[in-house]
Amino acid sequence: MTVSQDTLELLRDRLRDFAEARDWTQFHTPKNLAMALVGEAAEVVEHFQWLTPEASAELDDADRQAVSHELADVLLYLVRLADRLDIDLRAAALEKLAINAERYPVDRAYGRADKYTRLGTDDDD
Amino acid sequence: MTVSQDTLELLRDRLRDFAEARDWTQFHTPKNLAMALVGEAAEVVEHFQWLTPEASAELDDADRQAVSHELADVLLYLVRLADRLDIDLRAAALEKLAINAERYPVDRAYGRADKYTRLGTDDDD
Amino acid sequence: MTVSQDTLELLRDRLRDFAEARDWTQFHTPKNLAMALVGEAAEVVEHFQWLTPEASAELDDADRQAVSHELADVLLYLVRLADRLDIDLRAAALEKLAINAERYPVDRAYGRADKYTRLGTDDDD
Amino acid sequence: MTVSQDTLELLRDRLRDFAEARDWTQFHTPKNLAMALVGEAAEVVEHFQWLTPEASAELDDADRQAVSHELADVLLYLVRLADRLDIDLRAAALEKLAINAERYPVDRAYGRADKYTRLGTDDDD
Repeated sequence: MTVSQDTLELLRDRLRDFAEARDWTQFHTPKNLAMALVGEAAEVVEHFQWLTPEASAELDDADRQAVSHELADVLLYLVRLADRLDIDLRAAALEKLAINAERYPVDRAYGRADKYTRLGTDDDD
Repeated sequence: MTVSQDTLELLRDRLRDFAEARDWTQFHTPKNLAMALVGEAAEVVEHFQWLTPEASAELDDADRQAVSHELADVLLYLVRLADRLDIDLRAAALEKLAINAERYPVDRAYGRADKYTRLGTDDDD
Repeated sequence: MTVSQDTLELLRDRLRDFAEARDWTQFHTPKNLAMALVGEAAEVVEHFQWLTPEASAELDDADRQAVSHELADVLLYLVRLADRLDIDLRAAALEKLAINAERYPVDRAYGRADKYTRLGTDDDD
Repeated sequence: MTVSQDTLELLRDRLRDFAEARDWTQFHTPKNLAMALVGEAAEVVEHFQWLTPEASAELDDADRQAVSHELADVLLYLVRLADRLDIDLRAAALEKLAINAERYPVDRAYGRADKYTRLGTDDDD
């Protein structure tokens, strides 16, 4: 029986090999990778900036394909950055989910975007 | 024997439950989520903006913890956005890795950041 | 008769004095300032991410005041970055306006966001 | 004697005419313009992401020209966004400079990037 490797670990290993084969580790400081990360996230945004919220949910195939490559770029830089900082992304994400569950109790946050806005993740973590 | 769920699938499921319990799916259009994604990526950047590239690799424990939560936020919004667009992040990332391997042949890209810059992912995908 | 100084020049001079008085010029490399710039732009985005496009045009006074400070931050870092690169922002903006006028002829671009999207500024300049 | 119009007012007027001639005002909601703004700021970042801080201050002519167009794009979207929100950018920037002068007293902030980081503009305004 084959158990496939967790995606985040697989990508981490592949990215290490990729950078080492090209002697690019020297350029992959956290500072530089953080810049690359925000650049890729902004390219995701560009796909949606002139669309209505509704239209943004109904991309045609060509656009969905293009966006999937932008999302992939974000994930690749994210995984690489976490690796260079020796951060366990899975553990960090689960920890953050627990924090969010406490921060937004269902009864108080139900259906409220303003709640979300005011007490958003940006304020504290 | 228990095989743990792939991280990306686990987070996708948790985020669905989280949003549905709070009736937040209505706010989670791709357009809105793309905005949240770039906001979180920018918060990662803010941690590094006044540090030298060298210092950015030597965070103290408090900073590493703070950065780990920012990286988690990026991952959470990324997974949620991919889910709302019905995009398979694992497949997209592996596809992009294959494209990058072809785009940056080892012999031509070796040790060259300018190569990286000029033919960067931003130009085409 | 007093002619007030052009805003961009006034801010440039004030920011120079501000940085020199605090010995901060050493931190104001273009790389660092570009990071600060995108961070401030992302804070603008955060104000609008959960709002509908319509609601984004009808901020209450407290939100408008908060957003005005974020826009100010973007302008201040932009002016400082241009100064450190010895770039004339006024000339650059007028040049870009002329390029855009040629790129988007009225008869072909009229009322078309897709036009805008496909041939957007992001593609070339 | 001709007194030239303040740059920010000149650009605001030109951008109004530009959008109206193309019937693009309908797309220029603050939400959409904020997305375009962060996209342009991220394109500035991309020019510097693989450069050392030192090299980022020594662009060659072609790069300086390219960066000047990116900075122009940021300024154009910033001015347009402020106009759509009826925000006076000059007044907001001068107000923010006064706030910063109080927040970073010369004697305490002198030569300290950590000071800058910890008490940065991101925390409150």
